[in-house]
Amino acid sequence: LMTVLFCRWVFVWEKGYQETDSVVSSVTTKAKGVTVTNTSTLGFRVWDVADYVIPAQEENSLFIMTNMITTINQTQGLCPELPDKTTVCKSDANCAAGSSGVHSNGIATGRCVLFNGTVKTCEVAAWCPVEDDTHVPDPAFLKAAENFTLLVKNNIWYPKFNFSKRNILPNTTTAYLKSCIYDAVTDPFCPIFRLGKIVQDAGHSFQDMAVEGGIMGIQINWDCNLDRTAALCLPRYSFRRLDTRDVDHNVSPGYNFRFAKYYSDPTGTEHRTLIKAYGIRFDIIVFGKAGKFDIIPTMINIGSGLALLGVATVLCDVIVLYCMKKRFYYREKKYKYVEDYEQGLGGEMDQ
Amino acid sequence: LMTVLFCRWVFVWEKGYQETDSVVSSVTTKAKGVTVTNTSTLGFRVWDVADYVIPAQEENSLFIMTNMITTINQTQGLCPELPDKTTVCKSDANCAAGSSGVHSNGIATGRCVLFNGTVKTCEVAAWCPVEDDTHVPDPAFLKAAENFTLLVKNNIWYPKFNFSKRNILPNTTTAYLKSCIYDAVTDPFCPIFRLGKIVQDAGHSFQDMAVEGGIMGIQINWDCNLDRTAALCLPRYSFRRLDTRDVDHNVSPGYNFRFAKYYSDPTGTEHRTLIKAYGIRFDIIVFGKAGKFDIIPTMINIGSGLALLGVATVLCDVIVLYCMKKRFYYREKKYKYVEDYEQGLGGEMDQ
Amino acid sequence: LMTVLFCRWVFVWEKGYQETDSVVSSVTTKAKGVTVTNTSTLGFRVWDVADYVIPAQEENSLFIMTNMITTINQTQGLCPELPDKTTVCKSDANCAAGSSGVHSNGIATGRCVLFNGTVKTCEVAAWCPVEDDTHVPDPAFLKAAENFTLLVKNNIWYPKFNFSKRNILPNTTTAYLKSCIYDAVTDPFCPIFRLGKIVQDAGHSFQDMAVEGGIMGIQINWDCNLDRTAALCLPRYSFRRLDTRDVDHNVSPGYNFRFAKYYSDPTGTEHRTLIKAYGIRFDIIVFGKAGKFDIIPTMINIGSGLALLGVATVLCDVIVLYCMKKRFYYREKKYKYVEDYEQGLGGEMDQ
Repeated sequence: LMTVLFCRWVFVWEKGYQETDSVVSSVTTKAKGVTVTNTSTLGFRVWDVADYVIPAQEENSLFIMTNMITTINQTQGLCPELPDKTTVCKSDANCAAGSSGVHSNGIATGRCVLFNGTVKTCEVAAWCPVEDDTHVPDPAFLKAAENFTLLVKNNIWYPKFNFSKRNILPNTTTAYLKSCIYDAVTDPFCPIFRLGKIVQDAGHSFQDMAVEGGIMGIQINWDCNLDRTAALCLPRYSFRRLDTRDVDHNVSPGYNFRFAKYYSDPTGTEHRTLIKAYGIRFDIIVFGKAGKFDIIPTMINIGSGLALLGVATVLCDVIVLYCMKKRFYYREKKYKYVEDYEQGLGGEMDQ
Repeated sequence: LMTVLFCRWVFVWEKGYQETDSVVSSVTTKAKGVTVTNTSTLGFRVWDVADYVIPAQEENSLFIMTNMITTINQTQGLCPELPDKTTVCKSDANCAAGSSGVHSNGIATGRCVLFNGTVKTCEVAAWCPVEDDTHVPDPAFLKAAENFTLLVKNNIWYPKFNFSKRNILPNTTTAYLKSCIYDAVTDPFCPIFRLGKIVQDAGHSFQDMAVEGGIMGIQINWDCNLDRTAALCLPRYSFRRLDTRDVDHNVSPGYNFRFAKYYSDPTGTEHRTLIKAYGIRFDIIVFGKAGKFDIIPTMINIGSGLALLGVATVLCDVIVLYCMKKRFYYREKKYKYVEDYEQGLGGEMDQ
Repeated sequence: LMTVLFCRWVFVWEKGYQETDSVVSSVTTKAKGVTVTNTSTLGFRVWDVADYVIPAQEENSLFIMTNMITTINQTQGLCPELPDKTTVCKSDANCAAGSSGVHSNGIATGRCVLFNGTVKTCEVAAWCPVEDDTHVPDPAFLKAAENFTLLVKNNIWYPKFNFSKRNILPNTTTAYLKSCIYDAVTDPFCPIFRLGKIVQDAGHSFQDMAVEGGIMGIQINWDCNLDRTAALCLPRYSFRRLDTRDVDHNVSPGYNFRFAKYYSDPTGTEHRTLIKAYGIRFDIIVFGKAGKFDIIPTMINIGSGLALLGVATVLCDVIVLYCMKKRFYYREKKYKYVEDYEQGLGGEMDQ
């Protein structure tokens, strides 16, 4: 019984007769979608791929900007800091010249100046005016990103078996690719994902996530049994939020970064538009193991299994012989059996 | 015989006596090369590294733009869509206001306007004029990229053995590095690659690939036997096209992405140059395993091997005793042998 | 004795009873810090995150510019090359029209023109004036980057055990995160690093490294024993310079790349500021293995161990019986023992 169980374990569940290899992968991504916004600062504005994908390309991930704080027309100069508990001042004595806190936008000049009609803050040398990121737009500025789509092209390779495959399967037609959207049930092999659906499948709300940003993992599992036909080696997609946070432990939530577009005046003065971009970074995580029959692990596992089997037999004997209640009865029977078969099958039994 | 064969398998071919570790790697790349183009839209123009490498740096890959569709001086506005089967219209009734297809450049306003003298298409709010990417330049715009060179610096580390090495070998001189070009036969350890040669070594044509773009894998294999001297642990380069496609299954070929350069008018109006960049992304894929003698796997393999050997002996006996034609002859001989040596070497035989 | 030793090896040191899995990881980084420079070319200038982090975001790494060579106001045109041994000329005969060397900034026009009052060099079609990178600023331009900080957020996942964890530990408070700085001894779990300390912990000098740039690896080791409580699965940080070079073998040191900011004249002429950026790229390298009790490897290792043990016994016997001086004494004793216990425990002994 134990033998059978062990063999099933090793060979059926764990595939102990196979040699394995880890996947080597290459990923490209392409987003599609257009939306419009209409705000007082920026006016009516169309957003397309070149505007909201930053940077334009990355190796295994893609960032879609969903929200932003724009500070237009910054130039190098002197201006008051944003008021917070370290920058509000009453006189120059409160501002140490040359100092720069962790959250400062610039280097303090040592003067205390009016921030607005009522509040005075330390003056800094910085890109002026300084960014005010206290209020994150909610709902998200580009909330329509929920309906954008993402095409993921993935090519994998198992070097040990020289086996390669794409996630665009051989039987996929151009017509299907132009119209399909991934769905775990109806279209499990369509490589085009609706952003909202990715987030939803991971159990989160796109509109919530869009406000402060986040990281979504698009996991592609290429576990393959290469003893079977290559057509059965298929990608399996799953989605997971990678920046999950506890509700009661809200330390540095979301995902954002700052970048600037630099412009030059006719007079040669440099100015810039600073953008604090909140958004969702989609990391494409490809993993998997391929197994193929190989004589070495098979033999090693058979060897171990048999050695174990020998021990198991002995252990059973010991248990039966010394621990059971009706020990004498069993002891006799055992010895009898040994005597009977001693020479003919000696080797096999001891194993 | 079987013993010898098994031992050779495990210990000589599979290096069963070694503990293994996977490589940890760091890659930097640098492209070199200049070319000129002369077209009606852009005039005479020189292209250097800062122009064609986008983005300027990536972790394990490098994108070289080889072809492009430039749409200069786009501004936010209203303009007719490119004609295709969903956008051509006869009257406003054909254009649903606010709609946006997957391949749209903007949001439909609901009006049907003249695209040129003969065709009317739906008007969109978009960056205008919209990009026309129906004709990809052929031959590629920057076809001279074939002669650009790529320096790959790779530093690897095997954490378990605390072994690290660079692909610029200790005996490489500065003079050699300034002039060498990788060649599998003559210069297998030169880390400078001619782009054309990479593609050619992978069995493809650079000029074909340059038109629609693609992904090339530069594979660096660091399989090392650390029981031998570190000088024998050498990188082996190979090249593979990662976006291979069947000729009869031409779904979304090549590699391209869009990005924009933003400018600002003296009046403050933002305009941009949209570039659809086709090119070759070179992914540097570092893989490998290092092995070093270790007592644990050695013992485990010896143990398994011996257990297997015991079984093999028994199996041979069983086959010989019960299946062979001259069974009686063998049976006698076997038993005789057992009787003779029974006590002195009993343990060894049963194994 | 040998048995005990082997068992300790396999089960205590090597954790042979565990199934293992490799880590899947997601990383985000955020730099903070502001500094000012005052030079004749650029004047007084403030540098913030949007200025010195290039590109604005990457997947597993972050580049901090520490030094730069800026060539402002380049336009497409004709100008003399930088003088070096291939470009200095006496007459047009020395300059081959259309040629372009590996280190050229442009395509030679075939004319030999004055570079300055005394030297003549070949004229090239290029972005003019060409960059002069012969003198790298020393000390580094943004030497204050030593005090910038880097927040690393890392989320790991062991797919086989469905175990995930962040490097911001559950008991970390917001107040601690706002003020802490990583220190191997006092703050080993603070995810905020001072750039200077990273380089120093790796045994290098930040100010030296800042001049020509380099690559620093921030290694996060997540080796975990998941049989114990999840709270004991903790990240361990270490730092290593990845572009280490021998002092006597100074081939292509440091790390730098070129990028350009493009501007447009009121007349529509494109000009650019070319920046050769030297700096430190921080690669976040996450590795580790998790182990958890599993019946299969336990059994395989027990099997192998026992088989080996049997062999060990036999080998000991052989050594004792045939190689020792007092062989007859031992031989007798051994046989006596075997005879005594032959039937009762035969199987166990032979094992």
